[in-house]
Amino acid sequence: MRFISETTSNGVAERSFTLENIPGVLWSPAEATGGRPLVLLGHGGGRHKKDPRLVAVAHRYVTACGFAVAAVDAPWHGDRPKTEEGERLIADIRERIAEGEPIAPQMARYNAVMAERAVPEWQAVLDALQDLDHVGAGEPVGFWGTSMGSGIGIPFVAAEPRITAAVFGLAGHNGLAEAAARITVPVEFLMQWDDEMVPRDSALALFDALAFQEKTLHANPGRHAEVPAFELESSLRFFARHLLQADTSATAA
Amino acid sequence: MRFISETTSNGVAERSFTLENIPGVLWSPAEATGGRPLVLLGHGGGRHKKDPRLVAVAHRYVTACGFAVAAVDAPWHGDRPKTEEGERLIADIRERIAEGEPIAPQMARYNAVMAERAVPEWQAVLDALQDLDHVGAGEPVGFWGTSMGSGIGIPFVAAEPRITAAVFGLAGHNGLAEAAARITVPVEFLMQWDDEMVPRDSALALFDALAFQEKTLHANPGRHAEVPAFELESSLRFFARHLLQADTSATAA
Repeated sequence: MRFISETTSNGVAERSFTLENIPGVLWSPAEATGGRPLVLLGHGGGRHKKDPRLVAVAHRYVTACGFAVAAVDAPWHGDRPKTEEGERLIADIRERIAEGEPIAPQMARYNAVMAERAVPEWQAVLDALQDLDHVGAGEPVGFWGTSMGSGIGIPFVAAEPRITAAVFGLAGHNGLAEAAARITVPVEFLMQWDDEMVPRDSALALFDALAFQEKTLHANPGRHAEVPAFELESSLRFFARHLLQADTSATAA
Repeated sequence: MRFISETTSNGVAERSFTLENIPGVLWSPAEATGGRPLVLLGHGGGRHKKDPRLVAVAHRYVTACGFAVAAVDAPWHGDRPKTEEGERLIADIRERIAEGEPIAPQMARYNAVMAERAVPEWQAVLDALQDLDHVGAGEPVGFWGTSMGSGIGIPFVAAEPRITAAVFGLAGHNGLAEAAARITVPVEFLMQWDDEMVPRDSALALFDALAFQEKTLHANPGRHAEVPAFELESSLRFFARHLLQADTSATAA
């Protein structure tokens, strides 16, 4: 893991890194020392590691909870080279959308191809992050990612025992139900009630398929990209409940 | 409105009252003066105004947000006389449950009969509470009630323009969809994924029927009575967002 640049704003240090050919970014409290919980952020399709939504999530998690937070560019995204295979899969999806056809099979195929590459990448990145003094190997790790972030994240969390809790959503059961059935950690699952990309029944079926019974579904009106701002705060409290040792919210009932 | 008794514990004053034949209880910060947001709590079927769950909600709301909180015994519940009509409706439901039959039509009938009596009662109680110095008439009012609390609460909130925001849930669309379609305030809606009283589709249909588009569905695994403790905290933040003037959570995105 090679660190390239570092900036600090509002008490949050942002370090860009590369690990082999994977570009990433690590946010943490400025001048942090010692181990702390880590949250990995998976961006959506066509987005990248410094998408404004991810930056907002990272700053809030660092500021409110002192977490370390990391994101990487998924294959074919952000600063990474596009490939013929990736372009063809995306073109298939765009074509179906233009024709008003359902995209579930194409999305499932895209997610599967993507996850096959991205899951081992996340595992290597997690290895390297846990070697850092101000992250550490003994601390809880969360995963946050909706849409393509869940397309990669659900297989990743199913395969990776170091993850303690996850926020998923904006995804359907096609191609993901089998991995969801192997999830053994608490999940907060977001769905958009009027999602133009994910049919309502398919999102509900994916929530249903999550094997671990500590799961909570948050559904809000609106389209795929219209998740309300208060869900960021909710995800923060979810991770605070599950990643922090001194958990105040669990007893307040 | 006649106050009967007052006790204070942990900074929360609890005053029992009657209004005509309706027994109620008002919780507020000890030695509170001046107007403040009010939250009305509707208890579930077979429960009463001082059900432990309601007391826990009331204490948390008073302590965390300085709200006034009130509950009353619904018709045929708590300290109120049982009636032949009420007993017959409940016996119908119990008989169906014993026979393993669906109870939706009986629940809808029970809710309708109950709401016809309870809605004007809540309106009279709200009138009287707003005359109190430490509640006041100019402040936002919330309604919280699941199961039978929604059976009464959804028609009540549909009919009552003084309500600013509501928490509903553990209820199905039978007999309530029409009132839900007249709700014009933000709603947080709870459902239990494995509810033995309310079929999954019926709960989702009731959420769908809520007319106002600022609504959020929280679904959790478990049976009817197994709503997780963290939903109390979530409802607190929901009311804080909608009933408090100085709203910090809305900007934190």
